[in-house]
Amino acid sequence: MVKGSVKAARSAETREAILAAAERLFAEHGVFVVSNRQISEAAGQGNNAAVGYHFGTKTDLIRAIVRRHAEPIDALRVRMLARAGASREVRDWVACLVRPGAQHLSCLGAPTWYARFAAQLMTDPVLRELMIDEAFGPSIVNSLDGLNRCLPDLPPAVRLERGDMARQLMVHTLAERERALADGTPTVHADWDAYADGLIDAITGLWRAPATAT
Amino acid sequence: MVKGSVKAARSAETREAILAAAERLFAEHGVFVVSNRQISEAAGQGNNAAVGYHFGTKTDLIRAIVRRHAEPIDALRVRMLARAGASREVRDWVACLVRPGAQHLSCLGAPTWYARFAAQLMTDPVLRELMIDEAFGPSIVNSLDGLNRCLPDLPPAVRLERGDMARQLMVHTLAERERALADGTPTVHADWDAYADGLIDAITGLWRAPATAT
Repeated sequence: MVKGSVKAARSAETREAILAAAERLFAEHGVFVVSNRQISEAAGQGNNAAVGYHFGTKTDLIRAIVRRHAEPIDALRVRMLARAGASREVRDWVACLVRPGAQHLSCLGAPTWYARFAAQLMTDPVLRELMIDEAFGPSIVNSLDGLNRCLPDLPPAVRLERGDMARQLMVHTLAERERALADGTPTVHADWDAYADGLIDAITGLWRAPATAT
Repeated sequence: MVKGSVKAARSAETREAILAAAERLFAEHGVFVVSNRQISEAAGQGNNAAVGYHFGTKTDLIRAIVRRHAEPIDALRVRMLARAGASREVRDWVACLVRPGAQHLSCLGAPTWYARFAAQLMTDPVLRELMIDEAFGPSIVNSLDGLNRCLPDLPPAVRLERGDMARQLMVHTLAERERALADGTPTVHADWDAYADGLIDAITGLWRAPATAT
């Protein structure tokens, strides 16, 4: 290996160590209380400025963590959408929304931290925009489009509203289950697949519910 | 008025000013980025230690804000539960869960901040326990009991799971609507009552959905 590529490999390793440490610390202690200095230390970096050097601002670091997960989740969803094709079953499209996130966490193996981290971003007045930009892209829109084609009579405003509700449930129930696993609290479902089944049941019911005219 | 009661009245006014300022700043900028000093200033207190003097720690202040809202919401729910009596309609019990929070925000008049503040607490690894202790008391349990009596065949684990989902939806859709109102973003529903109708429709559908055996 030439000198330049050794340096590049080391830099990639350091970035990876920082991302992993930051994600864990953010999930366990909160995005705002953890300092770049604490992250550098937890990542085994002698230099306390390592986070700044490799990522820039805290927001840039947060964006990098989101991308590290949003990209594989999106890829899983794109494949599911291809299989769903032109399905007329509400449940198939809800599965495209729900299952990729659960499957991704399952593939990471225990413990995971991303779901708790993501839930914090979604309730922060500033960081939620970042999260929505990075993690709610075209594959989510296509899933919702499929869903809407199955339910042609639902008023547009109710579709919007139920799309938001589904997103809230996906983000926050994923985080609750991850937290329970981390704390050793008993969970309702044996694994992420069964969790996804339960959430798909519930969101399918939510979407199919008749809407009160208001 | 005797001297002691004038002093007590002033102290109550100061506490009220601090609670209002803290709630607004927390909702708009985030619970962790706002300092006690900023709150004291926004509450018109010359003394930057006013928050500490009147409330103790930041956690104590947060608890006081939660109580200020959780108590009237609970009182509304207790009255609704009395009216629901022995209803066998899922929708009536879901209404006991959902409507009191919406009604409380409606009574406060625009703008409100509590929903955004509460949503932040619910995703924080530490503060969520405080929120659950203060805001999810017996009236919530009684609403869920009523609901469960309407759906005797649902497995216990699924009941638990759907109770959590309903809680997530209540907390986070309330916060989304409050945020949209604050930002001037168009909202799906004309008022908090119509919002509650939409959420009651959705949660009723969620609860009634058949459960996949896992």
